Amino acid sequence: MKFTIQRDRLVQSVQDVLKAVTSRTTIPILTGIKLDVTRDGVTLTGSDSDISIESFIPAEEEGNEIVEIKDTGKIVLNARFFSEIVKKLPLNTVEIEVLVNFQTIIRSGKAEFNLNGLDAEEYPHLPQVEEENSFKLPTDLLKTLIRQTVFAVSASETRPILTGVNLKVEGDELTCIATDSHRLAMRKAKIETEVKGEYNVVIPGKSLNELSKILDDNNEPISIVITDNQVLFKAKNLLFFSRLLEGNYPDTSRLIPAESKTDVTVHTKEFLQAIDRASLLARESRNNVVKLSTLEGKVIEISSNTPEVGKVVEEIQAQSIDGEELKISFSAKYVMEALKALEGTDITINFTGAMRPFVIRSLHDNSMLQLILPVRTY
Amino acid sequence: MKFTIQRDRLVQSVQDVLKAVTSRTTIPILTGIKLDVTRDGVTLTGSDSDISIESFIPAEEEGNEIVEIKDTGKIVLNARFFSEIVKKLPLNTVEIEVLVNFQTIIRSGKAEFNLNGLDAEEYPHLPQVEEENSFKLPTDLLKTLIRQTVFAVSASETRPILTGVNLKVEGDELTCIATDSHRLAMRKAKIETEVKGEYNVVIPGKSLNELSKILDDNNEPISIVITDNQVLFKAKNLLFFSRLLEGNYPDTSRLIPAESKTDVTVHTKEFLQAIDRASLLARESRNNVVKLSTLEGKVIEISSNTPEVGKVVEEIQAQSIDGEELKISFSAKYVMEALKALEGTDITINFTGAMRPFVIRSLHDNSMLQLILPVRTY
Repeated sequence: MKFTIQRDRLVQSVQDVLKAVTSRTTIPILTGIKLDVTRDGVTLTGSDSDISIESFIPAEEEGNEIVEIKDTGKIVLNARFFSEIVKKLPLNTVEIEVLVNFQTIIRSGKAEFNLNGLDAEEYPHLPQVEEENSFKLPTDLLKTLIRQTVFAVSASETRPILTGVNLKVEGDELTCIATDSHRLAMRKAKIETEVKGEYNVVIPGKSLNELSKILDDNNEPISIVITDNQVLFKAKNLLFFSRLLEGNYPDTSRLIPAESKTDVTVHTKEFLQAIDRASLLARESRNNVVKLSTLEGKVIEISSNTPEVGKVVEEIQAQSIDGEELKISFSAKYVMEALKALEGTDITINFTGAMRPFVIRSLHDNSMLQLILPVRTY
Repeated sequence: MKFTIQRDRLVQSVQDVLKAVTSRTTIPILTGIKLDVTRDGVTLTGSDSDISIESFIPAEEEGNEIVEIKDTGKIVLNARFFSEIVKKLPLNTVEIEVLVNFQTIIRSGKAEFNLNGLDAEEYPHLPQVEEENSFKLPTDLLKTLIRQTVFAVSASETRPILTGVNLKVEGDELTCIATDSHRLAMRKAKIETEVKGEYNVVIPGKSLNELSKILDDNNEPISIVITDNQVLFKAKNLLFFSRLLEGNYPDTSRLIPAESKTDVTVHTKEFLQAIDRASLLARESRNNVVKLSTLEGKVIEISSNTPEVGKVVEEIQAQSIDGEELKISFSAKYVMEALKALEGTDITINFTGAMRPFVIRSLHDNSMLQLILPVRTY
């Protein structure tokens, strides 16, 4: 194996596949990045066996030579050292050559590294994914879907299925749901391209977070291929595999109240900032709890009280308050995260009494819903 | 006590004095910030008893009203809560009012905080510093002096005196020295203003780091007042007190070799980057050691070798190599920190054999010197 490559392209691909590599693996070869050089280009692979990422650098792109291939071949190089080395090379081109015994030379200008490589034959094979069952989404929509739901997955392994996002496809409708049993985030979207099959799978939140970091913000289509135990996201020159979580995702539809007793419409940013301020003095107490009360004249009062520190109270002018008078306590953290995930300048909150979950939606957008359980404070 | 103040000015002063406040104090009142309101303005104080910082906000500045004072008085407010509150207030003005029992109201727009304050009479008095013994330096020169020396202080409390920077004034010459006994940084400067007295004190490295963060980058003069056990830095509207370290600083002058056997002149950045690259594979081994060898034709070879990982070798073209042939090993970390502290595009290194300390200087600047002890590798 011997090739010369543009350093920037190599650095970018290494950074991408590095997101799947962990130093905490029990499988030594997975601490490495696999390089596979063919006449077409260089394929880099990183994996922690839950997530696998493959990045392809074509030999030629739009008539420009990216890689000059002298000999094809494969090698596995220590991910941490290899990634630090390529970042700090002195010139814009790098020559990589494998000698006997997996000894690998990395040459740029007058700097020459000699790294101990590992046998690529020992690197696990990536899952074979049948591309029968797939659909496409614009990349930026996929990133938005992830951003608006993944924060609500459970951080606890008590119920492993809740650490993932439930992705459902029925007809041309895609639904993403995440819940940690204290709050729930749901986002729906229309799939504009042809859909083959119906799906109901749970993708680990961690996988979606890593995927989101790698994807560029553009509207290029990304293919989503679903099998029994794997999901594959296919973008240009990039394959992202994740295992699926096993088990049935709870039916959350009956959690969402069909009717409400108090409806409030308020400016998102004003509401968010008032809760943020009230939470400053609530931080010391359990669960970061703040209190909301409806007052006369479309006024909402946000307050918190921690006797050993002090108290805070703030009034906000709502656009409308309809229905019963209400006093309710909730986690400031959950409501702030929900508000940040919503789009639009105004939100509507539907309350069903102080003891029942409440629902936050953008004023003129029903594709997105945030549900939060209140906190009992007496 | 009751006053209204521009929020930005209050935020800035709180951030400054907060640098002296630690939550790890055993004296509860020092977890607070003292506010002292007189007819002239508001003085804020933070202290951890080693460092004390006082920031003054004048009632009026250049004809603009910064503070509207209704009632004078004093209060101590929890530093963490107070600083977070003022940062997140909704409007550009804040009203602060102390009621009975040290209850303090912080009001901005429709947000109203009620913080439990503490009695300002219990706050320790700042040291009284006689302003007899003082001299002045431009602020940016003081910051440079700190930056070029403080990184070399000892991180270990084994010899507490080495955790400080030795500051000496003789005539109009100021010398700052820091050493952790493996390397030494020395910087000299001329004092352009009148100097009262001669000094030889040791200022804690931590104090100088905090001071440097607070000072703006300008050439306004800053007064340095030295007493037996305190140093006071006086800038506009800012007082920064630090205790001095007790004990005699070691005489370091005899550590600096008077002659050399091999002299190398090289481009600073090229040399720094080659050492950085060589250190990538040296990281795993003890002390981050790299090796330098002089070769024929004014060439320097930088290399490192960690058998379990690999090796790296790089050649650099020096501008000149005079004297004996040399092979020497040193800590990449120490040399890189020394090179970053030096100014100028080229450096000269004076070696006195593989076992003796070597000295790095900027090519045409003798005000600054970095001395480093080599590492025995056999």
